[in-house]
Amino acid sequence: MRTKAAVALEAGKPMEIMEVNLDGPRKGEVLVEIKATGLCHTDDFTLSGADPEGAFPAILGHEGAGVVVEVGEGVTSLEVGDHVIPLYTPECRECEYCLNPKTNLCQSIRETQGKGVMPDGTSRFSMLDGTPILHYMGCSTFANHTVLPEIALAKVRKDAPFDKICYIGCGVTTGIGAVINTAKVEIGSRAIVFGLGGIGLNVIQGLRMAGASQIVGVDIDPQKVEMAKRFGMTDFVNPNEVKGDLVGHLVELTGGGGDYTFDATGNVGVMRTALEASHKGWGESVIIGVAPAGAEISTRPFQLVTGRTWKGTAFGGARGRTDVPKIVDWYMDGKIEIDPMITHILKLEEINKGFEMMHAGESIRSVVVY
Amino acid sequence: MRTKAAVALEAGKPMEIMEVNLDGPRKGEVLVEIKATGLCHTDDFTLSGADPEGAFPAILGHEGAGVVVEVGEGVTSLEVGDHVIPLYTPECRECEYCLNPKTNLCQSIRETQGKGVMPDGTSRFSMLDGTPILHYMGCSTFANHTVLPEIALAKVRKDAPFDKICYIGCGVTTGIGAVINTAKVEIGSRAIVFGLGGIGLNVIQGLRMAGASQIVGVDIDPQKVEMAKRFGMTDFVNPNEVKGDLVGHLVELTGGGGDYTFDATGNVGVMRTALEASHKGWGESVIIGVAPAGAEISTRPFQLVTGRTWKGTAFGGARGRTDVPKIVDWYMDGKIEIDPMITHILKLEEINKGFEMMHAGESIRSVVVY
Ligand SMILES: NC(=O)c1ccc[n+]([C@@H]2O[C@H](COP(=O)([O-])OP(=O)(O)OC[C@H]3O[C@@H](n4cnc5c(N)ncnc54)[C@H](O)[C@@H]3O)[C@@H](O)[C@H]2O)c1
Ligand SMILES: NC(=O)c1ccc[n+]([C@@H]2O[C@H](COP(=O)([O-])OP(=O)(O)OC[C@H]3O[C@@H](n4cnc5c(N)ncnc54)[C@H](O)[C@@H]3O)[C@@H](O)[C@H]2O)c1
Ligand SMILES: [Zn+2]
Ligand SMILES: [Zn+2]
Ligand SMILES: [Zn+2]
Ligand SMILES: [Zn+2]
Repeated sequence: MRTKAAVALEAGKPMEIMEVNLDGPRKGEVLVEIKATGLCHTDDFTLSGADPEGAFPAILGHEGAGVVVEVGEGVTSLEVGDHVIPLYTPECRECEYCLNPKTNLCQSIRETQGKGVMPDGTSRFSMLDGTPILHYMGCSTFANHTVLPEIALAKVRKDAPFDKICYIGCGVTTGIGAVINTAKVEIGSRAIVFGLGGIGLNVIQGLRMAGASQIVGVDIDPQKVEMAKRFGMTDFVNPNEVKGDLVGHLVELTGGGGDYTFDATGNVGVMRTALEASHKGWGESVIIGVAPAGAEISTRPFQLVTGRTWKGTAFGGARGRTDVPKIVDWYMDGKIEIDPMITHILKLEEINKGFEMMHAGESIRSVVVY
Repeated sequence: MRTKAAVALEAGKPMEIMEVNLDGPRKGEVLVEIKATGLCHTDDFTLSGADPEGAFPAILGHEGAGVVVEVGEGVTSLEVGDHVIPLYTPECRECEYCLNPKTNLCQSIRETQGKGVMPDGTSRFSMLDGTPILHYMGCSTFANHTVLPEIALAKVRKDAPFDKICYIGCGVTTGIGAVINTAKVEIGSRAIVFGLGGIGLNVIQGLRMAGASQIVGVDIDPQKVEMAKRFGMTDFVNPNEVKGDLVGHLVELTGGGGDYTFDATGNVGVMRTALEASHKGWGESVIIGVAPAGAEISTRPFQLVTGRTWKGTAFGGARGRTDVPKIVDWYMDGKIEIDPMITHILKLEEINKGFEMMHAGESIRSVVVY
């Protein structure tokens, strides 16, 4: 079949909107009509050429929602008409990782996914002249139709709006999951969140759900304050306005340091601050942000020997097929908010404008609706 | 009263054996006759002058065992004749830290202890000419008699030999506790221990107790192999004999990386290797070694984002008054071994020789018996 897609032809260039060929689903695969997709920093990282693993031409996008159009041979858990959210971290429920309750990093299709192809080693997308186009993070939601392995699709309820729940495919789950699955924050905890962008706001609402008693937000952009308060931030700190040592200031503000701290900036200096601003004896610091290629975190080992723990999280520690439908329910039940974070709705033709707004810090989340 | 002590008069100089004055126990304090004391790297670190917090003259030593000779006013948990192990990490059972089950770092006497004085701000030791001598880590076990706060003494059974259980006051508890309290290793885990000195051997026997299925030891000194095997090491790796990447070699040997890895070297490069050789998705790496002043650990944040956790441990996460008596029982019941690690028994007059043997790598543990 043919479908419309934004194709990243080269690093550092705007994507081009074009018709592409899409082969039908093979064994264990599913054809999905994407109804909406969010624009995430990770897409931008790859498009910019900063990602050393980036390969082109490719159809980017990994934060989508849509409807099953056709199922391949042997698919048992999905049928035509099901509403689904694509998963860049699949859940096969059979590999060593899926069977270990400590991780969500299913490895069953990791190799091929990293190479931009389906598990059988080939791509379903091609240019009209036949040149293959790579998949991206196993999702490629910047195409109106895409093919995914069955194990990389979460089945969700049909009454949930695509243009909101697409965000659960990455940002919402990453932020809330970091709190619930990775940090396992307890009621009454004090927390510090560095970076109040799309991820940080979701960390904040995760903390509110988990019953944190103090939620300190840290950002160099004071424009983020209003929205962060709306999501549950109790105190704001602008590092540029702190006289003296930021760690000392945060430790004082939280009565000893955060029980839990989160980096949602991707800046390795901030990651260090987040660790050191966590409480002696029991503080845990969780890295969510993705650092530039080659950047390293560092600290004195004494910070850990005196009881701090340094962790990270990918996709908020969530197992997509199991956890994503629950988060959709939370949204539909009003337990979490998404609407105020979707600041811009765009057509596919406007997708490059969406990335420009991201660079300018004008959007929290832009969503393309097909 | 007067007692005999090895006094560290200056950084970098041998200690001098001399008679010193010792004031009796004040309110909440206990006078202990030290019967035996181990020589630990931490004493050496301070004596060498490398410790930026080191202050002189002082009576070092923090790995002792002895008998209560006199109790001060208000002491309720100990009486004359009790056998005790001094604790450099006290357990007051009342402070914010003691009341938080996540930490063992009681802070009740931290300030004064760090300054080499008793909680009332004064020292009990002085030279015969009246010059005050500082306490060390709240213990000063290189004196035949010493005064400690009641909350810094673990009461232990009377049939346990002083020249063995003194080692429980630091090394044994640090190594075994890192496994049991900090890492909470599960049966069947695979583990990697870096550094097979006194601490590493105790990590290994902790792992054996915890039911680890693979215990890989890593040391640049092949002479450590025999003893490590005796304590439970299943595989040995000498980094100098590995062709290519050490992390890759260890990951292959353990089928994906250690579920738990431990640094018992104090080398920040080794700490990084230990983290990176832990298993993707769920590996935990615990820093036990004490790094040189100012040294920093570093890694790519991706190591944590893909599921590794970096932790540290002090005194093996043990609460001294509660846990040390249990470890003494384990020793007396034959559940753990200490005897083969005590390689040298010395008189107080030979204490400087003990540190020379430590430098030469000739001893695992030297113990001074009074
Ligand atoms: N681990 C995962 O699974 C995962 C998933 C998605 C996104 N991410 C990463 O999370 C990070 C945040 O994403 P986002 O969409 O929220 O980005 P964003 O750009 O919307 O927000 C980042 C925020 O950090 C603030 N900031 C920048 N430098 C700062 C500093 N030095 N101190 C304090 N605040 C600072 C910015 O002002 C901004 O508000 C990115 O690195 C992204 O790649 C990780
Ligand atoms: N965290 C705590 O509470 C605590 C308590 C006591 C001691 N410590 C620290 O634990 C560390 C170990 O103490 P120890 O008494 O066992 O010391 P040790 O000197 O007896 O043993 C260290 C071992 O590490 C090996 N080693 C050195 N460099 C290495 C390398 N690059 N790769 C592999 N092996 C290497 C040495 O050959 C030696 O066998 C020290 O740093 C000590 O200060 C920590
Ligand atoms: Zn994303
Ligand atoms: Zn799996
Ligand atoms: Zn010690
Ligand atoms: Zn306490």
